[in-house]
Amino acid sequence: MSDRTRLTREPERGSDDPAVLHRLLDEARIAHVGFVRDGSPVVLPMAMGRDGDRLLLHGSTGAGMFLAGRTGIEVSVAVTHLDGLVLARSAFDHSMNYRSAVLFGVATPVPPGEKEHALRVLTEHLVPGRWDEVRSPTPKELAATMVLEVPLTEMSVKIRVGGPGDDPYDGEDHSVWAGVVPLHTVADDPIPSPTTRSSTPLPRSVRALL
Amino acid sequence: MSDRTRLTREPERGSDDPAVLHRLLDEARIAHVGFVRDGSPVVLPMAMGRDGDRLLLHGSTGAGMFLAGRTGIEVSVAVTHLDGLVLARSAFDHSMNYRSAVLFGVATPVPPGEKEHALRVLTEHLVPGRWDEVRSPTPKELAATMVLEVPLTEMSVKIRVGGPGDDPYDGEDHSVWAGVVPLHTVADDPIPSPTTRSSTPLPRSVRALL
Repeated sequence: MSDRTRLTREPERGSDDPAVLHRLLDEARIAHVGFVRDGSPVVLPMAMGRDGDRLLLHGSTGAGMFLAGRTGIEVSVAVTHLDGLVLARSAFDHSMNYRSAVLFGVATPVPPGEKEHALRVLTEHLVPGRWDEVRSPTPKELAATMVLEVPLTEMSVKIRVGGPGDDPYDGEDHSVWAGVVPLHTVADDPIPSPTTRSSTPLPRSVRALL
Repeated sequence: MSDRTRLTREPERGSDDPAVLHRLLDEARIAHVGFVRDGSPVVLPMAMGRDGDRLLLHGSTGAGMFLAGRTGIEVSVAVTHLDGLVLARSAFDHSMNYRSAVLFGVATPVPPGEKEHALRVLTEHLVPGRWDEVRSPTPKELAATMVLEVPLTEMSVKIRVGGPGDDPYDGEDHSVWAGVVPLHTVADDPIPSPTTRSSTPLPRSVRALL
């Protein structure tokens, strides 16, 4: 733990458990990647995947960052799950339940020899099981791909769970409903592309998402 | 549109429509806020709300940023909705449908006289209708609150919708299922706090979330 990953507020919400961090990353589909350009901050959403103890990043946006990434660029990467809305009896005490990881490090390009592996990790992260259902990348496609990697060495995890503060003697109006509204993301009915014949069964990877 | 909000890749995915931006912000609950600390990027998740043409930010984390914010701090704020997984017939062409806004500006503290209004906007953003159901903040609570504001002047919006590329003559194996798996966030059954009596009906604000 470094100075910048030490939680200065509510340290009880931190977690040092690598399994907690890995699950948090593995369940996420989007990372928000911050870097400095001409002295100013820039934050962009990117596709992500975890490959052991490195985070892989892939984005169609952020061409500037990807170019800078050829020689390594300092980044901060935040991955956040919003798990619920916390409703208290006072406006001030409203909150959210969340799991959040913030990573610091230098992003560098995945070497050419590892690009196919990296694309596989990213594809399997997005839709587990999909890689073996589809065509593998050609050398030209691999050449057109840049994946960045950031080691999972300097990071902090912060988690809030549970309800609002709830003390019978807190002086609040207890006739007011208080509690948590849990949130989660669901997949809706898949929409086949025009050239997908109606007789084509849903692949195993898609069925696993539903 | 400034140099840094001009999309350098896939400009057809951009949008200049303020109504599109406002809806995108109004539907989001978390913003990822990037700033520069000691020359290095930091990204933190924060609660957010839109108040006309300014974005309000409120976070229990990022004490350092909030202190720096007393005199204004340069930020980049990203707000992203993941709307679907795009499954192609090649690994390379997999993608995501999303709506994303990236804002640049200087975050400054909301003046003391506007803090109650700002907390109202943030509370109503989190749970519409909740403000009038709960106790208003005390002067002490307001003094303990710092809300930052960023004007919605320099930003870019990027949106991807629709399925994967789908050309009958693209040479891909059309017996493979391709299409989109839409995603959305849902609220689960509310969990009342221990001191909420079972006879307390769900308030209107909570019912509207379900």
